[in-house]
Amino acid sequence: MPETKETLKIGTRARIEMIDITADVQKAVDRWGIKEGLCVVYVPHTTAGVTINENADPHVQDDIVAHVSTLVPRRGAFRHGEGNSDAHIKVSLTGSSESIIVERGRLVLGTWQSIFFCEFDGPRKRKCHVKVVGG
Amino acid sequence: MPETKETLKIGTRARIEMIDITADVQKAVDRWGIKEGLCVVYVPHTTAGVTINENADPHVQDDIVAHVSTLVPRRGAFRHGEGNSDAHIKVSLTGSSESIIVERGRLVLGTWQSIFFCEFDGPRKRKCHVKVVGG
Amino acid sequence: MPETKETLKIGTRARIEMIDITADVQKAVDRWGIKEGLCVVYVPHTTAGVTINENADPHVQDDIVAHVSTLVPRRGAFRHGEGNSDAHIKVSLTGSSESIIVERGRLVLGTWQSIFFCEFDGPRKRKCHVKVVGG
Repeated sequence: MPETKETLKIGTRARIEMIDITADVQKAVDRWGIKEGLCVVYVPHTTAGVTINENADPHVQDDIVAHVSTLVPRRGAFRHGEGNSDAHIKVSLTGSSESIIVERGRLVLGTWQSIFFCEFDGPRKRKCHVKVVGG
Repeated sequence: MPETKETLKIGTRARIEMIDITADVQKAVDRWGIKEGLCVVYVPHTTAGVTINENADPHVQDDIVAHVSTLVPRRGAFRHGEGNSDAHIKVSLTGSSESIIVERGRLVLGTWQSIFFCEFDGPRKRKCHVKVVGG
Repeated sequence: MPETKETLKIGTRARIEMIDITADVQKAVDRWGIKEGLCVVYVPHTTAGVTINENADPHVQDDIVAHVSTLVPRRGAFRHGEGNSDAHIKVSLTGSSESIIVERGRLVLGTWQSIFFCEFDGPRKRKCHVKVVGG
């Protein structure tokens, strides 16, 4: 059975940012040669997540990041002592994984969709797992 | 290998609404004849998402729609020029995909659960992909 | 084909709490003997969900629970008559399922990650489905 899990390495540069990883996920899918199935993108961190959203106008990312930060401000009446409770909460709102259909070897994304790694407590060196199951 | 992806066509009628697509997803699963596996419902848009919630009292949907609109109001200090930044943000909160277990050919949903297509910037003509992988 | 779905029984003890179910999910995976694939954790309720977050400092869970309750307070101008609209809304924010990669028979979780059953309208007797598909 071919190996179908790969780990992307991502260097983030801001405390909060969205990084388009679509091309890297597609490259991983290409390498395995699985033509039909599901691709799961999984973030193994508790202060970073993943989301799918618009890639055309970068202001959409600005708006998402700004509004999520309004909903969950960095400073608050938090008990966790590391000062990054907001990042943990943001992860539980956006999620740690996304499932994307693979058809004829391609990720089936909408015209305007990209897969974004969501850094909520950077800058850091991060990982993101990608796996495909056929079927 | 049988084709196991199908695309539902959905015509939405309001700017924001939740549409129960459970019966259509089950019909797609029926057609493929896969008895055991996972069903992924995937929305290929960036201003519409998917969620699983109660189907019995439609007031639950009203409450979800109203409260999400309070958390992310349509008008705000947004940079994206199309006037629908709120819809993009709502998608990143609810998510673009859901994974449901299939057992003996049936979606394994709880008694009160339905799968809802979430329109956040309608009315529009929309698509929703459904795929099953066996196993 | 081996049976690869199992249902955990969970007794919750507070209205809102996060319960670490990682060990039980791993035990289910162990039982099936599937070494490579995807594990889906699915909550068949509409007032309870699932999330992945930090397991080290329990204050993180306190902060998540408290902040989500600030974003979606129990009392509000809700139409649903059962007094638990907030719980339904919280489920649509955190989600009903999570997908975790399985490698060499182990859930591929980050160092600080655990899988949490999220009770939003307890205390109740709850279920949580776990399924693995190979590939």
